[in-house]
Amino acid sequence: MAPSFTVTSRFHDSITRNALRSYLSEFISTFFFVFVVIGSGMSSRKLMPDASLNPSNLVVLAIANAFALSSVLYSAWDISGGHVNPAVTFAMAVGGHISVPTALFYWVSQLIASVMACLVLRVIVVGMHVPTYTIAEEMTGFGASVLEGILTFILVYTVYAARDPRRGPMSSTGTLAVGLIAGANVLAAGPFSGGSMNPACAFGSAAIAGSFRNQAVYWVGPLIGASLAGLLYDNALFPSLPTDSIRGVSEGAGV
Amino acid sequence: MAPSFTVTSRFHDSITRNALRSYLSEFISTFFFVFVVIGSGMSSRKLMPDASLNPSNLVVLAIANAFALSSVLYSAWDISGGHVNPAVTFAMAVGGHISVPTALFYWVSQLIASVMACLVLRVIVVGMHVPTYTIAEEMTGFGASVLEGILTFILVYTVYAARDPRRGPMSSTGTLAVGLIAGANVLAAGPFSGGSMNPACAFGSAAIAGSFRNQAVYWVGPLIGASLAGLLYDNALFPSLPTDSIRGVSEGAGV
Amino acid sequence: MAPSFTVTSRFHDSITRNALRSYLSEFISTFFFVFVVIGSGMSSRKLMPDASLNPSNLVVLAIANAFALSSVLYSAWDISGGHVNPAVTFAMAVGGHISVPTALFYWVSQLIASVMACLVLRVIVVGMHVPTYTIAEEMTGFGASVLEGILTFILVYTVYAARDPRRGPMSSTGTLAVGLIAGANVLAAGPFSGGSMNPACAFGSAAIAGSFRNQAVYWVGPLIGASLAGLLYDNALFPSLPTDSIRGVSEGAGV
Amino acid sequence: MAPSFTVTSRFHDSITRNALRSYLSEFISTFFFVFVVIGSGMSSRKLMPDASLNPSNLVVLAIANAFALSSVLYSAWDISGGHVNPAVTFAMAVGGHISVPTALFYWVSQLIASVMACLVLRVIVVGMHVPTYTIAEEMTGFGASVLEGILTFILVYTVYAARDPRRGPMSSTGTLAVGLIAGANVLAAGPFSGGSMNPACAFGSAAIAGSFRNQAVYWVGPLIGASLAGLLYDNALFPSLPTDSIRGVSEGAGV
Repeated sequence: MAPSFTVTSRFHDSITRNALRSYLSEFISTFFFVFVVIGSGMSSRKLMPDASLNPSNLVVLAIANAFALSSVLYSAWDISGGHVNPAVTFAMAVGGHISVPTALFYWVSQLIASVMACLVLRVIVVGMHVPTYTIAEEMTGFGASVLEGILTFILVYTVYAARDPRRGPMSSTGTLAVGLIAGANVLAAGPFSGGSMNPACAFGSAAIAGSFRNQAVYWVGPLIGASLAGLLYDNALFPSLPTDSIRGVSEGAGV
Repeated sequence: MAPSFTVTSRFHDSITRNALRSYLSEFISTFFFVFVVIGSGMSSRKLMPDASLNPSNLVVLAIANAFALSSVLYSAWDISGGHVNPAVTFAMAVGGHISVPTALFYWVSQLIASVMACLVLRVIVVGMHVPTYTIAEEMTGFGASVLEGILTFILVYTVYAARDPRRGPMSSTGTLAVGLIAGANVLAAGPFSGGSMNPACAFGSAAIAGSFRNQAVYWVGPLIGASLAGLLYDNALFPSLPTDSIRGVSEGAGV
Repeated sequence: MAPSFTVTSRFHDSITRNALRSYLSEFISTFFFVFVVIGSGMSSRKLMPDASLNPSNLVVLAIANAFALSSVLYSAWDISGGHVNPAVTFAMAVGGHISVPTALFYWVSQLIASVMACLVLRVIVVGMHVPTYTIAEEMTGFGASVLEGILTFILVYTVYAARDPRRGPMSSTGTLAVGLIAGANVLAAGPFSGGSMNPACAFGSAAIAGSFRNQAVYWVGPLIGASLAGLLYDNALFPSLPTDSIRGVSEGAGV
Repeated sequence: MAPSFTVTSRFHDSITRNALRSYLSEFISTFFFVFVVIGSGMSSRKLMPDASLNPSNLVVLAIANAFALSSVLYSAWDISGGHVNPAVTFAMAVGGHISVPTALFYWVSQLIASVMACLVLRVIVVGMHVPTYTIAEEMTGFGASVLEGILTFILVYTVYAARDPRRGPMSSTGTLAVGLIAGANVLAAGPFSGGSMNPACAFGSAAIAGSFRNQAVYWVGPLIGASLAGLLYDNALFPSLPTDSIRGVSEGAGV
């Protein structure tokens, strides 16, 4: 009975007032991150309808990612832990930092937020398609998945570094560090696999565009890369870190 | 008589030495924000007189917004609370963080500052028109207002997060977080509604350009979006926050 | 005799070990700021020899200004006070924050650094001219000087805000705030007056290019704008600030 | 016997648990820095296969450098000291901040990481060559080496400033300051010598591309520039700094 009790208790932990606040925080931050990232893709296309991606467009996408992610992580950091990405949530669950039921609620919040952001973009900007992540012709699906996995590895590795309670004064710039590496990654991978690093972003745009082609690429690589980053950070780089110090849901006093 | 007394007393609070400093601070920060944002629009036009907006110009506008807003908020943060935007002031008044008379003085400061910034630009740069915010052909006025409202929502949400006194060391990067989301929003919405998010900016450029076409779009959406963001943050995400901890006018010792 | 004694004593203060360190710090930071700003101008010209300034080049110049200034101010902040600009030094002297002899030594350091940076660029990059700041055809020299003065006003205003000892944790992002407004100003004014805001930068490039045309524009406006910003900040916005809390030369224990 | 004992003891210090962690941290951070920088070069080429470098591409490279370096330094800062660059390690060894054996292990980690990052890029992005750093036609190898040395000087100077324990709250933005100057340097030197400032980056790309042409340029200048910066900072600007306060390997409690 003990395990069953634990499951029930864990589930109850997932629907407390603070937990619900976390889901709302994840919803808002993910909604606006996806809104800006997919919106800036539409924006670029509007300005250059005939042309494919060029370096200026790549700068637009990279800055949109960097600025938006830094900022929405900032808002969510003390409420929900600032995941805003199913791959981050997955790594936290694999590492035991949040419970599986809570992680599932996080995923649901993130995915619904992403679908809604893309839906709103489609409704407001009439006559334009929502863009989806695509893979360059010379890349294989496997290669693209490995690339997305590598990018997500460093993203999640930076998230772990930023949340490390032993950072001291540097913790104040943690959300910037995460956003900047996301932007840099887009510059390196944009023309090859799109540089999603975020399954929610890929899922929402695919759902509204109605094309799930290559969707697995944006899930398999990132989830594996994220888990490896979390495990490596916890076990090799800072093995003495107490399990609960990086956690998704703030308990009690909040902030 | 008590209410009348309160109104008088509140009005007196709005013309203390510290309050006057706040208005001056809002004036200076709004003046330079509008000067840079509208100026960079003129700058882009000067470099590409025949072309419409292209991705490089979009980067110019987005970076101008992000860098200028981060910086002028930084200067005004401890003096006037760093609104620099009538929509932020409106949300603060709706949420009860500043009194209505003080909010009105803030609006007056912001609007005069914006008009003067655009006037100075027009006088210095002879022979060029001051650009106004425009809506893409395929957008309706209603759609543009909704879009501006959504963008202002996340802007004000981030302002509330940045001013939250429980942020600890992260409060030091709050003005950056606000500026970065403003820049990201411009990337997403620039070619569709302009990405103003600031009624003062839209008003000042319209006043000097002499064209108030679609002006309502840049007021209705942002004011509603800003209020919703403030109410949501105060009531759903951090309900225990004491009312006065986010306030516009610093009292007493200042800073 | 007392005044003469004071002058001597003040002069002695200007050649202490700490003061000499300050001059070295100003020299290094100004050298590299000018090196990057003028170098990025040459860089842009190398990539597009036939074209005039375009929006991408404007982004190059703005980012070079913002990133370099943030960074060199960071290094010099605790040693020399992080002026890196004769206009800032002038404002500090006018406001009584540093003595006139010290200010003169600062100017000499800054101007020699700028000339040397441009000389090194000219020698290394054989066959290219060092670019100088120019004024758009439709602008008058007076208008350009007013424009540079306005831009320098907000730059120095931000420097004062960043050095304010009452900023608390936000003081950690002060150098970023100054750099970002410099970059934003370049976006707004680049095609009109160049967006120098720094007499040393204009002087060094003019000295090596051998053309002092319009040099006064880059001195008169910035010096006036800087002084007004300093006086306004000290007297209207934070009148109670003790005189010595914003000062150029660190005394005693350093840092 | 004492010296021999010291050497052995020093070598033992280089293979403790914390030291091994440092090497892993350097490996990860260097891998991802090189991955982003070289990857963004490939990205630019993919988008504009026929064109040479243009201002938009220069912005891509500069932002990739600035964002990636800020972020990987952030992650490595408290573990390995955040070198991510053999020139930084060299300067630290010359200044006596880390022992020679430890420095050698750092170099090995950095160089292997760089080669592996370029190898992974080559394997994933089939059919594209890994780009190497090249020198503009009008530059001599000597001039390019001097230029790279100057750029590395200010980079390492900023690293020393950022690690200075007497910075107080500003230490929280140190990694940003270093990343920003790297990006600014690329803008100034990109079309002339490439703006590597990092022998590991130049070595890895050359090894995978199979062309070591001008490789010495990217080692001699940076190593000399880095050492001079370190010595100047330690001896002229902050002479009283205790030797061990800037060090590469965290001992004991970590972080």
